[in-house]
Amino acid sequence: MSLTESGVSQPKTARGQKTREALLRAAEKVFGEKGYYVASISEITQEAEVAMGTFYLYFKDKEDIFRALVQHMLELVRAHLRKHVGPAQTQIEAERLGLKAFLSFVSRHKNLYRIVLDSYSVDETIYSSYFQVFADVYSRRLGKAEEQGEISPGDAEVRAWCLIGISNFLGMRYALWKRPASMDKVVDTAFDMISHGLAAR
Amino acid sequence: MSLTESGVSQPKTARGQKTREALLRAAEKVFGEKGYYVASISEITQEAEVAMGTFYLYFKDKEDIFRALVQHMLELVRAHLRKHVGPAQTQIEAERLGLKAFLSFVSRHKNLYRIVLDSYSVDETIYSSYFQVFADVYSRRLGKAEEQGEISPGDAEVRAWCLIGISNFLGMRYALWKRPASMDKVVDTAFDMISHGLAAR
Repeated sequence: MSLTESGVSQPKTARGQKTREALLRAAEKVFGEKGYYVASISEITQEAEVAMGTFYLYFKDKEDIFRALVQHMLELVRAHLRKHVGPAQTQIEAERLGLKAFLSFVSRHKNLYRIVLDSYSVDETIYSSYFQVFADVYSRRLGKAEEQGEISPGDAEVRAWCLIGISNFLGMRYALWKRPASMDKVVDTAFDMISHGLAAR
Repeated sequence: MSLTESGVSQPKTARGQKTREALLRAAEKVFGEKGYYVASISEITQEAEVAMGTFYLYFKDKEDIFRALVQHMLELVRAHLRKHVGPAQTQIEAERLGLKAFLSFVSRHKNLYRIVLDSYSVDETIYSSYFQVFADVYSRRLGKAEEQGEISPGDAEVRAWCLIGISNFLGMRYALWKRPASMDKVVDTAFDMISHGLAAR
C-alpha cells in the first residue's frame, strides 16, 4: 500500500534506517512549517543534522522525500488508530475510539494537514491515494460490521468517505485551528450523529 | 463576509464589472489547471483576452486575484446551494437537496478543489475563512431546526463541521475523481446516514 515508489533504496542497516527516519522527522517539521514550495533540502538536512551528501543516499530529490513523508504520515496515523481502536468490540464502538484517537493524533502532529494538503498541488495522486488507503480499510470494516449486524445496511464505500470527511474536518477545526473547552464533548456530539443521525427521535 | 480586502477597487461601471468577472473566470481556469504557484498573471490576462495593464486596474498582484477568486467561488457555491435548497420544507430535507446540489456544482466546477486546497498554502486564513463561512451559516440553520423540533438536539457547530466534511469528501471522491454509476445512490446512502446514523435499527 505504498503511495509511491519513493527512495533511492531502503536502508539495509539499523543505522541507515535511523538516519532515514531522522530525515523524515525533519521533513515533517520543515515541510509542515514552510510548505512544500518554500522548503528546501538544505533546511531538512540541517534540521536532521545530516550532511547534504547523506540525503541523496536515501532520497532522489525534494519531491521524493515529500512522497516518502506522506507515506510515513499515513503509516503513523494508521498505527495510532490501530492501537486505539483495537480494544473496540463493535464497529460502532470503533467509530468513537477512532475519532477520539484521530483528534489526539492531529493535536500532536499539527503539520499533518499542511503536508497532506500540499500533496494535492505536488501531484494529485499522492493526495487521492492517501485518502483511498483509509477508504479501502474503512469500507472493509464497515462491510464486515454490516454482515455481523453491528450496523444498519448501506453502501460501505460511500459511508467510508462520509466518515473520513467527518474526522478530517473535525480534526482541522477542533484539533488544529481552535481547541474546544472539551474535546470529549465534540467526540460525543459527532459520535451521536454518526450512530443515530440528525432526525428527531 | 469577505475573505479578503481584495482588489484595487471595485469597478463602478457595468463594463468594468464585466471585465473583472472575465478575469475571475479566467483565473478559475488557470489557477485550477496549473495551480497557484505555476500560474502567472499573463496566462490569466491571455485567457481573459484582456491587456496586462487592465489587470492592474482590478487586482494588485497574483495573490490579490487569487483571494478574490476564492471569495468568488464561495459566492458561486452559496448561490447554487441557496437556489437548490430553497424549496426544502425542513432541515432534514435541506440536507438531501444541499448534498445533491453540492455534488452537481463540483461536477461543473472541477477546479474548485484545487483552488480551495491551494489557498491553504498561500495563506491558511483564506482556507479556514472559506469553510468558516459555511460553518456559520450551517450552524445557524441547524440551531433553528433543533428549536423547531425538526432534528434531534445536539451541538450545532460540531454537526455543521461534520456535514461540511461529508459534502467535501463525497464531492471529491464522487464528483471529481471517479463518477459513480448513480450519483443518486451516493446521495441516498449519505442522506440515510446523516438522518439515521449507522447503528443497527
